[in-house]
Amino acid sequence: MGMTVFDSVAHALTTISTGGFSTYDTSFAHYDTAHKEIVAIIFMLLGGIPFILYFQSVTGRPLALWRDAQVRWYLSILAISAVVISVYLNTTLGMEYFHALRLAAFNSVSLMTGTGFASGDYMQWGGFVIAIFFFLMVVGGCAGSTSCGIKVFRFQILFSITLVQLQKLIHPKGVFCTRYNGRPIPTEVLTSVMSFFFLYALSFSFITIALSFTGLDFITAMSGAATSISNVGPGLGDIIGPSGNFATLPDSAKWILSLGMILGRLELFTLLVLFVPQFWRA
Amino acid sequence: MGMTVFDSVAHALTTISTGGFSTYDTSFAHYDTAHKEIVAIIFMLLGGIPFILYFQSVTGRPLALWRDAQVRWYLSILAISAVVISVYLNTTLGMEYFHALRLAAFNSVSLMTGTGFASGDYMQWGGFVIAIFFFLMVVGGCAGSTSCGIKVFRFQILFSITLVQLQKLIHPKGVFCTRYNGRPIPTEVLTSVMSFFFLYALSFSFITIALSFTGLDFITAMSGAATSISNVGPGLGDIIGPSGNFATLPDSAKWILSLGMILGRLELFTLLVLFVPQFWRA
Repeated sequence: MGMTVFDSVAHALTTISTGGFSTYDTSFAHYDTAHKEIVAIIFMLLGGIPFILYFQSVTGRPLALWRDAQVRWYLSILAISAVVISVYLNTTLGMEYFHALRLAAFNSVSLMTGTGFASGDYMQWGGFVIAIFFFLMVVGGCAGSTSCGIKVFRFQILFSITLVQLQKLIHPKGVFCTRYNGRPIPTEVLTSVMSFFFLYALSFSFITIALSFTGLDFITAMSGAATSISNVGPGLGDIIGPSGNFATLPDSAKWILSLGMILGRLELFTLLVLFVPQFWRA
Repeated sequence: MGMTVFDSVAHALTTISTGGFSTYDTSFAHYDTAHKEIVAIIFMLLGGIPFILYFQSVTGRPLALWRDAQVRWYLSILAISAVVISVYLNTTLGMEYFHALRLAAFNSVSLMTGTGFASGDYMQWGGFVIAIFFFLMVVGGCAGSTSCGIKVFRFQILFSITLVQLQKLIHPKGVFCTRYNGRPIPTEVLTSVMSFFFLYALSFSFITIALSFTGLDFITAMSGAATSISNVGPGLGDIIGPSGNFATLPDSAKWILSLGMILGRLELFTLLVLFVPQFWRA
């Protein structure tokens, strides 16, 4: 099915900005053609990479993009997710392999970058796919890109801290250094990453509880909280899943979700600092 | 309904150890009497408090128990949870107020301390109660007690770090100190708490994905992961919820849950260190 100029422009704008707003209720499933999805996958992927690296690539450091640890993890996580899910869809649901890979790749990229396009109703693909998609949504793309979520580099730093802890268990008197991209990580970065991770978990918990108070079931509340803080778009479950929408939710839930989206977009601290009494005294 | 001597001994042993194994499938709902539940609440609460404080209380520092910040948070979280849930049950389900308070208090204490007794099928109480119970389960009791989960003191330390981060946003050149129980927290404690929190989240994610791979639905997989790492007992959903059990799960899921229980009981690091190559070389 062809795309009108208007639809092309509309989808182009929401693809590169990882916004994910489509002119059709069924999102990319409306077209269901491989080449359109491949184009979207490429530009969603590009939208989830730190923009500074593009600048460095064209100003004398052409290899910056490939040497960056964050980009490597980001692409690896997506590649693993796409392959694992496509094999699973192929073996359990009997989907033709390339079709499965296309669906798995498109939706993994769309959810991890926080774009939120959907090319199929993944609620029908079983709990395994849903669980992977849920965690991809929470991880998010790279820092310095248009995507949201906790961001890949924070996981790398937390992973590095945890590895040092495990090494200390083996060599209690050893001196270890947490590194990122080959360089030592200053303590301030460590604590700011850790408090971000904690604040994300805390905001997620409170938004889930608040949403469920408005009468939503547990899975709608939980995925609604994740999808709003990570600025993704669709959630999980029958109501706000890829084939549903947020229209039927009560107004109170929409207010809470709006707060969640602002919190996530402003990376938590900037908004939550308003609740510290000293802010108003300063 | 009376309790035989055998049942009393069996329940006493699994109450103070926050084990939660009952001689009846319906757990405490079998008796459904207020005074038995109150006795159980008291001893589950005591089982979730650091045992060293009892020792200090009887050896010359009688106020140790009340001055401890961890115990205060632990009791406050439970009190808030019991009151909020009972008001909710009273207003939405029309439960008689004292009955609602009894159910709310018993199940909150049972889940937060990781005991896992149930005195009612809380899956029928709506998403709000389920969401609160899910997060109580993850928080767990106090460090130094028989309970499991992330533990209250870790949340206090993470909270303290996050507060300092927020204060730094207001006064970028200010010097702040993260404190716990009035004393500064050494950097090693900060990083070990952070990496524990991260490892818990990571283990939780992997166990959820692994469980859903065995064919479990998302809510069973997710709550199964939480209930096994936190050593609670019942999960959420129709299968492993308070009125169900783990018998019908596939063998593969039981292996994964067993791994989760060991991971949680050994506080993650002790088991995960086995996967660091240096451990085998040392």
